[in-house]
Parts: sequence; C-alpha cells; structure tokens
Amino acid sequence: MKALVYGGPGARSWTEIPDPTIRDPRDAIIKVDAVTICGTDLHILGGDVPEVEAGRVLGHEAVGTVVEVGSGVGGLVPGDRVLASCISACGICRYCRDGAYGQCLGGGGWILGHLVDGVQSELARIPFADLSTYKLPEQVSDESAVLLADILPTSYEVGVLNGHVRPGDTVAIVGAGPIGLAAIVTARLYSPAHIVVIDKAESRLQAAKLFGADTTVLAGTDDPLGAVRSLTGGLGADVVIEAVGTPQTFELCATLVRAGGHLANVGVHGKPATLHLEDLWIRNVTITTGLVDTYSTPRLLDMLVAGQLDLGHMVTHRFGLDEFMQAYDVFGDPARTSALKVVLSR
Amino acid sequence: MKALVYGGPGARSWTEIPDPTIRDPRDAIIKVDAVTICGTDLHILGGDVPEVEAGRVLGHEAVGTVVEVGSGVGGLVPGDRVLASCISACGICRYCRDGAYGQCLGGGGWILGHLVDGVQSELARIPFADLSTYKLPEQVSDESAVLLADILPTSYEVGVLNGHVRPGDTVAIVGAGPIGLAAIVTARLYSPAHIVVIDKAESRLQAAKLFGADTTVLAGTDDPLGAVRSLTGGLGADVVIEAVGTPQTFELCATLVRAGGHLANVGVHGKPATLHLEDLWIRNVTITTGLVDTYSTPRLLDMLVAGQLDLGHMVTHRFGLDEFMQAYDVFGDPARTSALKVVLSR
Amino acid sequence: MKALVYGGPGARSWTEIPDPTIRDPRDAIIKVDAVTICGTDLHILGGDVPEVEAGRVLGHEAVGTVVEVGSGVGGLVPGDRVLASCISACGICRYCRDGAYGQCLGGGGWILGHLVDGVQSELARIPFADLSTYKLPEQVSDESAVLLADILPTSYEVGVLNGHVRPGDTVAIVGAGPIGLAAIVTARLYSPAHIVVIDKAESRLQAAKLFGADTTVLAGTDDPLGAVRSLTGGLGADVVIEAVGTPQTFELCATLVRAGGHLANVGVHGKPATLHLEDLWIRNVTITTGLVDTYSTPRLLDMLVAGQLDLGHMVTHRFGLDEFMQAYDVFGDPARTSALKVVLSR
Amino acid sequence: MKALVYGGPGARSWTEIPDPTIRDPRDAIIKVDAVTICGTDLHILGGDVPEVEAGRVLGHEAVGTVVEVGSGVGGLVPGDRVLASCISACGICRYCRDGAYGQCLGGGGWILGHLVDGVQSELARIPFADLSTYKLPEQVSDESAVLLADILPTSYEVGVLNGHVRPGDTVAIVGAGPIGLAAIVTARLYSPAHIVVIDKAESRLQAAKLFGADTTVLAGTDDPLGAVRSLTGGLGADVVIEAVGTPQTFELCATLVRAGGHLANVGVHGKPATLHLEDLWIRNVTITTGLVDTYSTPRLLDMLVAGQLDLGHMVTHRFGLDEFMQAYDVFGDPARTSALKVVLSR
Repeated sequence: MKALVYGGPGARSWTEIPDPTIRDPRDAIIKVDAVTICGTDLHILGGDVPEVEAGRVLGHEAVGTVVEVGSGVGGLVPGDRVLASCISACGICRYCRDGAYGQCLGGGGWILGHLVDGVQSELARIPFADLSTYKLPEQVSDESAVLLADILPTSYEVGVLNGHVRPGDTVAIVGAGPIGLAAIVTARLYSPAHIVVIDKAESRLQAAKLFGADTTVLAGTDDPLGAVRSLTGGLGADVVIEAVGTPQTFELCATLVRAGGHLANVGVHGKPATLHLEDLWIRNVTITTGLVDTYSTPRLLDMLVAGQLDLGHMVTHRFGLDEFMQAYDVFGDPARTSALKVVLSR
Repeated sequence: MKALVYGGPGARSWTEIPDPTIRDPRDAIIKVDAVTICGTDLHILGGDVPEVEAGRVLGHEAVGTVVEVGSGVGGLVPGDRVLASCISACGICRYCRDGAYGQCLGGGGWILGHLVDGVQSELARIPFADLSTYKLPEQVSDESAVLLADILPTSYEVGVLNGHVRPGDTVAIVGAGPIGLAAIVTARLYSPAHIVVIDKAESRLQAAKLFGADTTVLAGTDDPLGAVRSLTGGLGADVVIEAVGTPQTFELCATLVRAGGHLANVGVHGKPATLHLEDLWIRNVTITTGLVDTYSTPRLLDMLVAGQLDLGHMVTHRFGLDEFMQAYDVFGDPARTSALKVVLSR
Repeated sequence: MKALVYGGPGARSWTEIPDPTIRDPRDAIIKVDAVTICGTDLHILGGDVPEVEAGRVLGHEAVGTVVEVGSGVGGLVPGDRVLASCISACGICRYCRDGAYGQCLGGGGWILGHLVDGVQSELARIPFADLSTYKLPEQVSDESAVLLADILPTSYEVGVLNGHVRPGDTVAIVGAGPIGLAAIVTARLYSPAHIVVIDKAESRLQAAKLFGADTTVLAGTDDPLGAVRSLTGGLGADVVIEAVGTPQTFELCATLVRAGGHLANVGVHGKPATLHLEDLWIRNVTITTGLVDTYSTPRLLDMLVAGQLDLGHMVTHRFGLDEFMQAYDVFGDPARTSALKVVLSR
Repeated sequence: MKALVYGGPGARSWTEIPDPTIRDPRDAIIKVDAVTICGTDLHILGGDVPEVEAGRVLGHEAVGTVVEVGSGVGGLVPGDRVLASCISACGICRYCRDGAYGQCLGGGGWILGHLVDGVQSELARIPFADLSTYKLPEQVSDESAVLLADILPTSYEVGVLNGHVRPGDTVAIVGAGPIGLAAIVTARLYSPAHIVVIDKAESRLQAAKLFGADTTVLAGTDDPLGAVRSLTGGLGADVVIEAVGTPQTFELCATLVRAGGHLANVGVHGKPATLHLEDLWIRNVTITTGLVDTYSTPRLLDMLVAGQLDLGHMVTHRFGLDEFMQAYDVFGDPARTSALKVVLSR
C-alpha cells in the first residue's frame, strides 16, 4: 500500500510499503477513507519529537472502514465505518479505568504516527481497536467526523472542560489556529457571555469571528488585557485557554485570568515558562495542562448528529489520498494558504 | 490600651495607643483573650509587605470577647466569645456571595494587621464582624481556637481541598512549618494512604511525624523524588502541597506530582518560579493557588468540638499579652527555639 | 399606600394600608416599579399555605427603587434601582454562608408575602436588603428583571443545575407553565441535544416550542416514555425536570430518566408520591428537590445584559399597579386567558 | 468439578457439574481459592430473583487463581491471583466508558451467579476477565480480599461516595448488616464527626460499635430522629445511608436527613416506598440509588495494602469449600448464628 512515511527531520514521502497486519488479538485493520494532518505532524517533521523513528507512517486522525479484526476485539466487525482517534487505550490500566486514556500505562496513549505506524496511509493497523475507534452513524460525513479524531475532543476536554466554562462566563482564547477555533465552537456549548480571541494574524481573527468569537484582539497591536478587563469590570476572564504553546502566550494568559478563574493550557510546549507566583499565589487561580483523553468523543459524535457542532468553516482544503505531498505543502504554510484543516479522501 | 505597633521595617513596639471605636455599623470591638503571631507578621517586619504603614497594629489571629457592636451587626452581642479570623468579608460582593471571602471586593479580605489595625492588642476593632468572627462553643479552648484563625483553614482549603486529597492517595507536603504541619492534620481527614513530608530541618521532620506523616525526607540529603516514586509505583504523588514559598520548593513540587495529579500551592511567594511546561503540558496536572477564604472555619470548629483535630503539638510557647516583644523574639528564631506557634493570653 | 392584601382563603383586596417603615437596621424600603404574581400566590389564596395570616400583603417578585435604608445596610443607597428577590438572606447562618439562602436559619428564606408583608404594593419593606436585592444595570428592563425574582433562578438552580444538564443531553421537562418554560430557556444554556416537553395543554406546548423545545408530547394523548426512548436509543432521558407538583407527574418523571440520570424536582407538592424503589434501586438515579437559593441571580442578570436570555414570550399580559384585582383574575384562569406571566407597572 | 447449584426456589446442592471452558476470547477460567455468600444469594433461593434459572451456579464474590485465559485477554496470565468481582464489564459500551460498569450494556453488569454461572464452585469462568478481575498483591489475604468483591465497593460507592460524606459530617446508617457495617468502615475514611447506626438487633448494634459507630439506636425502642437531631442542633444528618431495603427503613431515612443533605440508598428493594414530597420539595435533598460499579475496587485494594481498612470483625465463620451446604445454613440464620460474612476456602 501507499503511506506517508517520515524519513527523518525534514523528510517525508508518499511511498509504497507492506500492508499492515494484525499483531495482537485486540488490533483491527482499517481502510482509510479520510484523513487529516495535525500541527504535531509538522513538529515531527521539524525534528522536535525525537522518539519518532525514520520509517514511521505519520498521522493520528482518520475515518476508515474495518477490514479485519483480531480475535479479542469485541465491538467491531469488518465493514464497520469508524473514527480512528488520536488516542489508543488498553482499557485495563489505572488511567484507562478512570477514562484518562491519554495517560494509558498499558501501551496506549498517543501512539499512532508516533510510536507505531499511523493512519496517513491506505490501510492502517489500529491497536486496542475497541476503545480506540468509534462507530460512525450514517448521517455523519467523513469530513466532519475526522475533526473529532483530535481537535474537537482536545479543545473540549483540555480547554473547555478543564477550564470549567460556565454560562455567563467571559472566556479568553489565546491562539486562533484549528485548536483555538475548535475551542470557540466547544466553549459555546456552555453559553459564555463573551468569547475574546487573541491572535497575531488578522486572517485567523476573521476566522474566529466566523466561529463565534464576539471580541477579537490583534496581538502586538491591540491590548489584550485592556480588552478583557473592559468586558469584566476590571476583574479578568473567568476562563483563559492557551492554544499556542509558547512561553509568551502562556504568560499572557496568566495575566488575563481573574482571581478565582481557570487557565487551561492546551498548547504543546517545548520550553519552560515563567510563572509569576509572586502575583498568583494570592489569587486562587487554577492552572491545568493535559493531553486529550478522548472520553468526550462519543458525546461529541452525538452532538454532531444532533447538528450542534458547526464545523463548516474548519476544512479549508480538500485533496485525494495520493495528494499527500501537496496537502502537507498547503497545511505547512498557512500564512500563504490560510489553511485551517486539510482533508484527504479516497 | 497597649498594642504591638509596627514602626516601619525592623521596628516593633508594645506600646500605648488609643482604644479602638466603632467606625461602621458593621464593626464590633473585642477584648483580646488570646492571640498568635504569623510568619506573615515577620515578613511585614522584614519590609516585604510595603502596603503596611508605620503605626499599624499587627496581627490577624485572635480569640476575644465582644464588648461593643455596631447597629448593623446582626449575629453578635456583647459578651459573646469569638474567633477573630484572618479574613474579613463584606458579605455582599460577588466573591463573598461565592464564599470566596479572601477575594472580597467590598473592603474585606486580609485587612487585619495589614490595611487596618489588627488584633495584637488589648482591644481590637473587627470590621464586618458578622462574617469575620465565629462564636466559640464553651468546650473549645482559646489556644485551640486561635489556631483556626489562619493556619488550619489555610492548610485545609488552599492545600487539602484545593488539592482534592482522597482516601488512599499519596500526599507529598513540601515544608513542615506550622502550615505544612496543619496540612498533615487536615489531609488526614481524607485518609490518604501515605503522607510524605519534605523539609530541610530535622527537627521539623520530627514534628511532622508527631502530626502523622509516615515518611519524612530531609531535603538536601535524601531524595524526595525517589521517596515519592517508591511509594507510588514510580508514578508520583496524587497530591503535592507547597508550604514554603520559594521557586525551588515550588519547582520540586512540580516534579513530584503524578500525571493527573494536583499541585496545591499554599506558600507565600515573593519571586517567580519556572514552570516546566515542556514536561507538564502532556501530564494533565492541576496547579492551584490561593489565599484562604475561611469558608471552612465553621466546619473546622465543629471538628474541634468533636475531637477530630489533634492540635496538641502545635503551640510550643505560651506568653502573657504584655510579653509580645519576647514572643516575637522566640517565634522569629525557630532554628534556635524550635517554635511552631506561640500563643499570648491574658 | 395601596397594597394587595390577603383576607383569608378566597379573599384579596387592593386596599389602603399604612406605609412600611424600617424595623431593623438591615431593612430597606423600596418604591415598587414592577411586580408580578406567582402560582404560589394562588395557592395562598386557595388556603393551601396556612401559615400566611389574614392581613398579609402578598407578593415576592418585584423591581423597585430604594427610598430608605437602615443603618446596617452596606451596599445600597436611596435611588438605587433593584430587583427584590423571592428569597431573603441573613447572610450569617450556616446555610447562608454556603449560598443556600433558601434554607436561611436566621430569619430569611421565603418570607416576603408569606411570613412578612410582600411586594404587591406601592412601597415595600425588604428585610436583609443587602443580600435580598440586586442592583439593576440600566440596560435591563423592569419587565425582564422581574422574571429574575423567582422563576428564572428557580428553574435554573433547582431544575437545570441540580439536574446537571450537560451538552448533548436529552432533557425531558414535565410541565410547561412559567417554570417549565423558564427551564427550557435555562437548560438551553448547556446545549442539550434534545429538549422534550410534556404537558396536557396544547397551548402550553406551543409556547414550549417558542421557547426552544424540539419535541412536545401531549400528556394523555401521546406517549411520553415512547417519545423519550425513541430519542435516546431506548435508554431514557439524561435529565428529567418535574415542573408541576403532583404525584402523577413526579411518578412519570421517574419512568423517563435513564439509568445514571438525574430527576430534578421543581414542582411544589402537597401530597406524597410513590417511589418505585423496586425498579430504581439498581438504576443509579439521582433525585433532587429544592427551594430556590437565588445564588445564581447575579449571573442570570449578567446573562440578561449580554442578551443571552430570551424572555420575550414570557410576559403575556401587562397592567397598571392599581389593576391588581384584574391581573389576578387573568393570571388565575390561564385556560381561558393563556396567561403565562402578568406584569404590573407604575 | 463441584459447585453450589440453584435448583429453583428453596433448592440448592453442592454437586458435580462439568468444568467451565473458555467461550469468548475475553474469558478467563479461575480456580476458586476463597468465596463468600451474599444476602442476594438468599434472595435468589427465596425465589425473589426470577431471572435466575434452575441449574445456575450461584455466587459473585471470590478470590482465585487464573488457570486459562482467552486470546483477547490482555492483562492476565495463568498463575495470577485475582479478585473476581461481582460486576463484569465489557469495557466498550457508553456506561463502561464512564466507569459505570454496573450498568454495562454490552453483556456485563451483575451477571455472575445471576445470568451466567457464578463462583461458588471449584472452577469458574469469568467473562470480560480484564475488567472483571483485579490482581492481588501478595500481602493481601484471601479473606480480606473477598470482602472487596462486593460489600466494600458497594457500601463505599453507593453509600459513602454517592452520599458525599465529608469531614465533620453526621452520618446516619440505617441497617447494621454486612453492608451497613462496611458503610461504617468506608464512611470513616472521610472523618465524619458522628456515625449513628440504627438497627433492630442489639447484636448488630454491638458490631456497629466495634466497626466505629459512636451512637447506636435500637429501632422500635429508641428514637432515631431524636438521636440524630440531638447531635445536629435539630437539623438532621448530613448524610443518611439506607442499608436494609424496605419501605419503612427508606421512609425513616427521609425523615433523618437535614435540608441540603444526602440520602444514599444501598438497600435492595422489592416494593415501592412513599416519598413525602409535600415535606421534601422545599428541603434541597438529594436522593441517590445504585448498583455498585466497582470503579473503586483498585483504590480499596490499595487501602487494604496500606492497612487502612480494618475488616477484622467482618468474617465470623470459616468453612472449607466442600462445606457449602452448612455455610448457607449458618449465613441464612444470622439471628441464631450472629453471622456477618462467612468465607469458604480451599
């Protein structure tokens, strides 16, 4: 089959490799019908994720059709149309029993396209298939479903639910890439009074408005703190969601949160940040971090079926499966292409 | 009357000043029966709390007898024996309505001995007396009660409750001063399996064992991370409580907490710390900060009555009210005196 | 002044009585600008609330202007425009300290128009004025604000929040009177996938659709259980809200809730119901009851200002203050008048 | 092998039947080392659980050694010593993903000794073995471990955790059989100020004192409501746990709970109870029901290892495995034998 293979920092190719096979009774093999690229894949290609070995098939977000299941798979049969999630779960370890699949100690967690071959390929092996896939109702399109493989549950669990967004809140979101935009969509499920989005690209702020932000702030030009304070009687935001992953953006978030508020970090960080405890110690602030666990995926699917998640503006570019090289070029240069998410389908 | 008056950095005196009077209908005047000194008072004397003006009476932890109440006080009458808490509460603002008295926007919060005259004096004016005092049952001694003015609710709310200690947890407490020791007492209410206490003074670790720690670690000599990991199958502590207030101790705490665990900061910080987001972003950690709100004080009093709080080892030195200068000397030099809390009584 | 005075079962009159005066330093006197009638007032007139004495001014939902405050009132001055809430709160007792104002042990709770004179009058005395009133922003109309005196916080706290409505849930509401309709409005803040409303009056089901119900069931004709099961794969509703107050409706609710779901009782009951523990013991059901506490009123006001609460269809009839007798006639015969809420204004 | 076989109402025999075999890849076969009898087994024998067919092996609480595993079992190997829990879990359905294993929709839940053959036998087949068994540390005895198969997690999850027991609470427990006594043990993990136990047998109240009750009330003679009120300033218990399963005891519980309190039903009911909504509607009471989910079992095991669960008085009678007929006689007549739990071991 063909697959997008990592060849070491800077190197990727859409190339022929052997078909995957069942290695463990809990595995399934899927035919990939739709798949997307994540910012993390770009980090891997940039050499920032050294545990990814050359030769690895990338990708952790796909929709597919089951073609084979191991003897220990209880909930799937060939022909099932499934979402293959970014998180695999052994289902047995203490974290999995708590629904904290992202922290799986039994060989799961984020493994696809990372520690084992991923889903940017014609066929893919899905370990622990029962808990790592979600059967798709007929009325859900491939393109909507694939957004639930990572960015929707990530923004919802790690941003909105960790941040305890409540009706009437003022929510500040720093970063309007796909994760930040998905945070707008999922924060709105809790009816905040205000969603303030801060980014340094005007085009992304325009996207933020389409997704439902009522206030946008151009970083570097406008005053984020002033904007948040003017909406909150000077107190600060009830919930601040970090969706970038740099020390500067995290430190900005810490200034935006009100006493008693929540700062939910979603961004992937490569460096330490400075935590101003001399200000924060007295302010009853809660800071959370997290990799997605995907416990919310079934509920997000239900909401997708019920028409509650408006994801229409998220996919900006569409490709055939064999156009992977071009799709990476487009997704990797958003300043030029204004790409949010790109989807490749058969 | 006599009072302990702050005279600017390094200067304190037990001296005659005018008696306090009712200034607001919600005030009460108490005769101070027992009072203690807080580490924060030492910080003030060290010049670290510049908003405290020379001439200010210090102190925010006392037991007293009501001698006069303003017309707007609904729940107190002269003769009532009360705990005067470190936190005053207007009861009306949005934070007070949520029980977040420490963040009071209506003139309360930590004001005693800070923004208004405190309780290290023969008489004291207590603003917002209804919500800032707690009537004491007869069976509670002055000496036990005064420990509920600050250190017990602080360690309980900001350490144990913010940290979500649960039965069976492994709890690590960094710092075995009065707050850290009170955190042991109040963490035990939730039956953790293990309480590991880390301090750099052997004498304080001995005290920690008296209060119920089952493992003690001498910082600088022993290996805190190894100790915690050996108790937790390598995962780290479920809850880590910071009870010192330095960058180093906070950063240690962040290494001790397991994925999915809680780091509850109680220490008063004067400098920023480094937050290793490059490690923490993926670990589902919750970090909390906070000034005490004292919402737990009535319940702690009930537990004191029921014999559930063993505070017998906390008061190490006892003085008469007019021995304040000497009491400060003892409390201010714990390395020599092994002082934990000192109590001055009539 | 004129007031609506209860004269014993069946008897009411709009009549001249002495102006109210400050009796406690925490009282305020308000000039009533807008006021409404509650189903509870009809119960009182029906003789079902025997603790209400003849001579009592009725009413517990008003908007007014402060004309005088007692010396112990800290947050109000004459001229303030305020919402007078159905619940008064001493602010000191153990329940008030927990925000459970409805259970106040210090003389508050539901007292207006019940144990003390109410607000269906030209002037009214508001006990514990600081915690029993809410200052109104200019942009909030009297008519919208008066709906936050009782039905909005009641449906939100006792129905939606006690019922733990979550995004994607199926919520069943039994009863489409003002409380049931307000439950639709406030449940929608949490983005349920489906809101099913059950009532025996077709006109109220039409109203339910206006407020946002997506499925309506005519009790006695349609099959409520079938409707709920068809939306939930046979499991039952995640949350069921009882908004009538009869044994039959409560018992219906208990059949509609799924295993693991919540049944939130809001209705005022006069008789016991049968609880089918032989079915329910194994089903992990949570049943809650409650009088409103009004802790949510400030937040609901914020949401009103932010345009998040669409209450436009709730007030069906408008009267002058001196038309109280006629307003009762209209409100008391909804089958004929289709009245939901009636508002009387100066 | 030999097994305790149900022969229809009133009929049981310890008799030879074929050895169990792997039927599904997720099954395991265990050799039973220790096993106990539950009150539910007596109900089955009484004919109260009609879905149990004649020929069924009874029993759902055992400790055993794995002798064979299916190909889909990931976490067990022959030789592992395990606890076989009363609840089996498919691990895939929406309830299992939430840790609500007792409500499993995939073929699990309470099935052992109910819908499939149980564990009162020399060998037993355990469906969904990965999530239905718990590996035992060496230092845990068979006799202690077997108490974690049902009564400890049941009393903890359905009584103590559903009831939200908190430090300082007054907890009333109605019924001092094994479940009520286990509720004392597990409630104490949250340090209530008072545990009041009500039963009609003096011997069981003596046992309650051994387990840690501080107040006991002889039903029919003493006044339960008076006892609870005298401990709580007239308010009622914070948490009431029903551990009997009759309308009378449930209705007693509803009178004992304070406004704002919790009533956690643990008892297995065969008849409806009367719910006095005319009193309860205004009192902010939370009533919960539930079958155990066993999500707490790993944590209870950790606490057993840490010496936190004092179960020494629970096992009153010990038998060999082939003495099942006699063990049932003893367990079935506690008035005569004072039996709490009986354990049968190889």
